[in-house]
Amino acid sequence: MGSAVKGIAILGSTGSIGCQTLEVIRSFPHHFSVVGLGGWRNLALFQQQVEEFHPILVCSKEVDRVALPPRLTTATRVTMEEMVCHPRVDLVVVAVAGSAGLLPTLQALRAGKVVALASKEALVMGGQLIAREAKTGTTLLPVDSEASAIWQCLRGEDQEVARLIITASGGPFRQRPLSELSAVTPEEALNHPTWRMGKKITVDSATLMNKGFEVIEAHWLFHMPWDKREVVLHPQSIVHSMVEFQDGTLKAQMAAPDMRLPLQYALFYPKRVQSKNLERLDIANIGSLSFEPLEKQRYPCFSIALEAVQRGGTYPAALCAADEVAVDLFLERKLGFTEIPRLVQRVVEEHHSGNADSLEDIMGADDWARRRAMELARV
Amino acid sequence: MGSAVKGIAILGSTGSIGCQTLEVIRSFPHHFSVVGLGGWRNLALFQQQVEEFHPILVCSKEVDRVALPPRLTTATRVTMEEMVCHPRVDLVVVAVAGSAGLLPTLQALRAGKVVALASKEALVMGGQLIAREAKTGTTLLPVDSEASAIWQCLRGEDQEVARLIITASGGPFRQRPLSELSAVTPEEALNHPTWRMGKKITVDSATLMNKGFEVIEAHWLFHMPWDKREVVLHPQSIVHSMVEFQDGTLKAQMAAPDMRLPLQYALFYPKRVQSKNLERLDIANIGSLSFEPLEKQRYPCFSIALEAVQRGGTYPAALCAADEVAVDLFLERKLGFTEIPRLVQRVVEEHHSGNADSLEDIMGADDWARRRAMELARV
Repeated sequence: MGSAVKGIAILGSTGSIGCQTLEVIRSFPHHFSVVGLGGWRNLALFQQQVEEFHPILVCSKEVDRVALPPRLTTATRVTMEEMVCHPRVDLVVVAVAGSAGLLPTLQALRAGKVVALASKEALVMGGQLIAREAKTGTTLLPVDSEASAIWQCLRGEDQEVARLIITASGGPFRQRPLSELSAVTPEEALNHPTWRMGKKITVDSATLMNKGFEVIEAHWLFHMPWDKREVVLHPQSIVHSMVEFQDGTLKAQMAAPDMRLPLQYALFYPKRVQSKNLERLDIANIGSLSFEPLEKQRYPCFSIALEAVQRGGTYPAALCAADEVAVDLFLERKLGFTEIPRLVQRVVEEHHSGNADSLEDIMGADDWARRRAMELARV
Repeated sequence: MGSAVKGIAILGSTGSIGCQTLEVIRSFPHHFSVVGLGGWRNLALFQQQVEEFHPILVCSKEVDRVALPPRLTTATRVTMEEMVCHPRVDLVVVAVAGSAGLLPTLQALRAGKVVALASKEALVMGGQLIAREAKTGTTLLPVDSEASAIWQCLRGEDQEVARLIITASGGPFRQRPLSELSAVTPEEALNHPTWRMGKKITVDSATLMNKGFEVIEAHWLFHMPWDKREVVLHPQSIVHSMVEFQDGTLKAQMAAPDMRLPLQYALFYPKRVQSKNLERLDIANIGSLSFEPLEKQRYPCFSIALEAVQRGGTYPAALCAADEVAVDLFLERKLGFTEIPRLVQRVVEEHHSGNADSLEDIMGADDWARRRAMELARV
């Protein structure tokens, strides 16, 4: 990053993380320049963003198929790869949902860019490939609130770590009788008690697949052995994660549940800055922070995720792909809530893993698992 | 510290902190050598310590008046100053109760030793003098659990700090009706809900004078303005203190309430080591951590301490001295529990502060306040 103003590209700018990234940037107009915006789903919102932030580059998967409206023509249409590799881009925020974040993450890293990674699926699928190209805290900056919390707790002392303790809110169904889970609707699943997030991750938070992904993410980001991490339920989402050191000390990172904080932390790293956007946590009046063990029976997706990653190879890629299909089908009311883990598990069990040394291996498994999930769901 | 084995001198070895320091050293015999022990009150225990740890030096205030028993004659009797300045001493643990820690702390620092400071009164009385000689984390290592927690939270990032948040258990009378406080007995005051500590500090924890001292201690250790610190009640004593950064993030240090942890942290700093002595905190089964605002009416000593330090000069020294007298009288049943703040406040209000630039200024105020407190108590 040569200049004082960081050049930012955001992939997935109309999604929840993309919008919150732009909120942070809006508060600090002298620190950041939005060089590229891409990966939209909501064209009307995208147009507003282009008008406000004046990126010189725009991209989309649909770039060749959809004509850009005339008001967007001040920006050059490029491919995602051209955008993340552009010389004026210093930092790429990868915030596209699901597996689509893997390829641009690798391209940006290979072009020497810093990647602020919000798509945990990229690390779940291609952790080995990304870890080969990136150094956490230098070229790869975690944005996920739990991963950011661990990164912050390790700041200044990343040795003599005994355990990473990842917190989980438990989602909206933490206290719902197990027998009622099969009747859960998309509206209920999308009503997360503490976080405002995109649809995919909100459903993954209700099944706790998301927490399985985060354990995998933490593995690749912080290189901790699988047995050195623990997940604990913490319904208030104030303690975003903890690090236990060899002497038994825990360091915890705490803040109001607001994704703009980890985003701002990554964008300004290593500086911390005050922001009118960010609420101060009034700890004296917060009452109680509670912790409880994870009830595994309630969250089969969590165990499925950990099994897949322990099998290694392309199993995590198949896991991610099957989960994406299952969550989409659930949101379309074509699959019940408790059928999500069943479908994902069947796909993972039928999967035959090859090597996972290249993007082709991973995308091949992704493709197979998507097709197989659709077949098994018979939709 | 030239060699791999650190030479340790402990002032106040038979007190609670002294004994716990020796417990830590006992677990790591290859890392530490007990060069000197001193400041005893309990001679039988002191003899046992000398037999077990074989210090080459012993000292006591009574060194000239009390003949050492023959079994102690393998050690040389020296003055406190000779002990803390001895060439084989690398690190001095200052754990004498009350104001007696100030002089040896200054002597040790001036002799180029590292001081692990458990006597917060030394910093309350002579913070300006100590701060002139010492650098926190280099030559001055906090041992108090709250100060250690802040020191740990600032590790790796001591810039962009918004606030220090010191936790307080609230002591045994947090929920006692205010009208019943005057009848509190020493036995009740010594029954602290979460910590095992010496008598003076346990009573100071019941009145919250101790928390006032810690705010002052944190000021001199971490050079934060007075308005950048907050005290919050946290009855479980698991979160030992927190640091709030400019972006609203809190970092908290958590552990079971056990003074051996901050002692071990200071002795091994910057390393953290596993110890069979130290309990692992099982956060998933800990239930709830609660926080509440400080009820100032219940704890007049807290406000008296903060007023004294804001007045500056020798007021904090008078405060410490008056509190020591008042707590002693309370333990001897010559003063009621609610008379402690009254007596301390009268002494502080009658005090005329001069400069506090030298040890003589401070010890003069100490001497005056002790005598005045005794006169006012008419005992």
